[in-house]
Amino acid sequence: MSEIAILGAGYMGSAISFPLRTNGHGVRLWGTWLDDELVRGCRDGLHPRLKKPLPEGVRIFDSSRLAEALAGVKAVFFGIASEGFEPVFRKLLEHLDPDIPVFSLTKGFVPLGDRLLRTSEAAEALARGYWGDRKPRWVSIGGPVKAVELSDGIPTASVYATSDPGLRDQILSFRTPAYRTIPGHDLAGLELCASLKNAYAILLGICDGLYRSGSGRLFDNVKAFFLTACVAELAVIVRAAGGSDRSAYGLPGMGDLHVTAQSGRNRRFGELIGGGIPASEAYRSMYEAGEIAEGFHAVRHGWEYARRLDPGLCERLPILGTLRGILDGGLAVREAAAALVERYPYR
Amino acid sequence: MSEIAILGAGYMGSAISFPLRTNGHGVRLWGTWLDDELVRGCRDGLHPRLKKPLPEGVRIFDSSRLAEALAGVKAVFFGIASEGFEPVFRKLLEHLDPDIPVFSLTKGFVPLGDRLLRTSEAAEALARGYWGDRKPRWVSIGGPVKAVELSDGIPTASVYATSDPGLRDQILSFRTPAYRTIPGHDLAGLELCASLKNAYAILLGICDGLYRSGSGRLFDNVKAFFLTACVAELAVIVRAAGGSDRSAYGLPGMGDLHVTAQSGRNRRFGELIGGGIPASEAYRSMYEAGEIAEGFHAVRHGWEYARRLDPGLCERLPILGTLRGILDGGLAVREAAAALVERYPYR
Repeated sequence: MSEIAILGAGYMGSAISFPLRTNGHGVRLWGTWLDDELVRGCRDGLHPRLKKPLPEGVRIFDSSRLAEALAGVKAVFFGIASEGFEPVFRKLLEHLDPDIPVFSLTKGFVPLGDRLLRTSEAAEALARGYWGDRKPRWVSIGGPVKAVELSDGIPTASVYATSDPGLRDQILSFRTPAYRTIPGHDLAGLELCASLKNAYAILLGICDGLYRSGSGRLFDNVKAFFLTACVAELAVIVRAAGGSDRSAYGLPGMGDLHVTAQSGRNRRFGELIGGGIPASEAYRSMYEAGEIAEGFHAVRHGWEYARRLDPGLCERLPILGTLRGILDGGLAVREAAAALVERYPYR
Repeated sequence: MSEIAILGAGYMGSAISFPLRTNGHGVRLWGTWLDDELVRGCRDGLHPRLKKPLPEGVRIFDSSRLAEALAGVKAVFFGIASEGFEPVFRKLLEHLDPDIPVFSLTKGFVPLGDRLLRTSEAAEALARGYWGDRKPRWVSIGGPVKAVELSDGIPTASVYATSDPGLRDQILSFRTPAYRTIPGHDLAGLELCASLKNAYAILLGICDGLYRSGSGRLFDNVKAFFLTACVAELAVIVRAAGGSDRSAYGLPGMGDLHVTAQSGRNRRFGELIGGGIPASEAYRSMYEAGEIAEGFHAVRHGWEYARRLDPGLCERLPILGTLRGILDGGLAVREAAAALVERYPYR
């Protein structure tokens, strides 16, 4: 068992400390400069979001003490939202020994200058400025994981994708009876699924808003159609990026989309839109309540990423195109959803 | 538009009359000798299960008038449960012109003598005794369809699989704005998905029963894992039978499993088991309330079908094997479910 640093004291960073401590790893949880309140809460006894104490023995570091948190660790978990990716990863690079692997919990595209990158691409690009040709030992984590459930010990499985075969044993060292870590190779596929599931979850939320609306009638047929079509469209993007179908149809794609569409912010964002509230208004009202519907940005980023990958690809993404139209306010929701059922190019 | 006979006045047979009438087809609904009460209800104004009147213009025939119901029709929908498949299909063969296609809504394996067959296999085997070498023009229908929703006009899509390319136009003639019929080719894949989803839905129900149990805690992580693993295992069986992955990962597999696991008898059956009631007792108590958990038989039949297809195949079906052990009473439910999360051969 070894010393491990977790960067980011939000939901996922804090939750991952539970299986790590179960396995006897030494855990240091570092909060960013935006996490001061979370760090204070943890010190007072309860993590403010997980609503429970962190496991025995987790050492907490506030933002000024990064070097100390990282000294001598054998692995870093990177639990930072995509907006904070660049500044926090740069800070990490100032202190990180290139031999130490980074296990990334970030989901979302990373804007870097005028580029829009997957997390492993962004990490590599940023590392170049610090380490020259030396690349980070990078692992991206995906699959259906709600942080609270992970901390509750509900059986959970994650795929850990990396191009570095030497990390297999370390990945397996994070396993517990209730947390299964599965080594994988498809960085591109996993990262695209992790980023885009927030976009596609909006459609499933829209479906709830459209058809539930007080009628008491069921609408499982249309929801199952949308789930199936969203996963198929994820696979189109993943293949275009050189990733594997297995990611789209496995835990990072289907599994994570399913979890995301069960509850959470992006589903609720869609539900508001399906219920008749314009997307910009729904986004604003959630924002004012302190909730960011990341899917709003994931739709825009996903579309842009696909367009830059292959300009012809967007024509094969009718769901993402429809979501874009709905979020822009240009498409009427009910008609657009019905048109997808009628015309989605199902194969 | 043409005259169409529907055999079976249960949920699906009756529900399919809605899109057919929307398209102006002439519809004749024939009830089997077990459907007398349903037929009486329809004549009195309300279908007893759908709880609504059938569409304007549907002509109802009771079991003694099959020849009349079939005279001059251009298509037959076969809406019969798998237990009734053999006797009703034999009756149909006595009257059916071999040029007239049969669109089958049956889901489940058909026992025939000492064999266990998919529906299209059973139809072909039975037709041999009546028509010699002439094969039925067979179409199997799959995908996520709850009958009540179909009759409510909730957007719904079905795959119509057939090896007869001449039926494409007729399949498309059943489309309405709210009911999409999608021509397909993979009879084996679609029929296996349609039969086995009832088996796999039991596991998702078990998951509800195990983890919900009054705790108020969420367990979406484990449910998403099971959904993903069940679909992957469906694909293993489908491929072994020469079918296509697309069926398992598309509407007939993932889509139908999702719908089935949302509600319904097989999910409830699993929920009872997950809640601690022995499987045989759960089956009996549902049976006494007039509800048959078909999944109970689907597990046994699916296992047997796989074993006869390839004796080595069963080793690659840990979920079906686990369900078999749980239904036999030989496996403890909580431990068996946890073992699947820990050891399912995820790839």
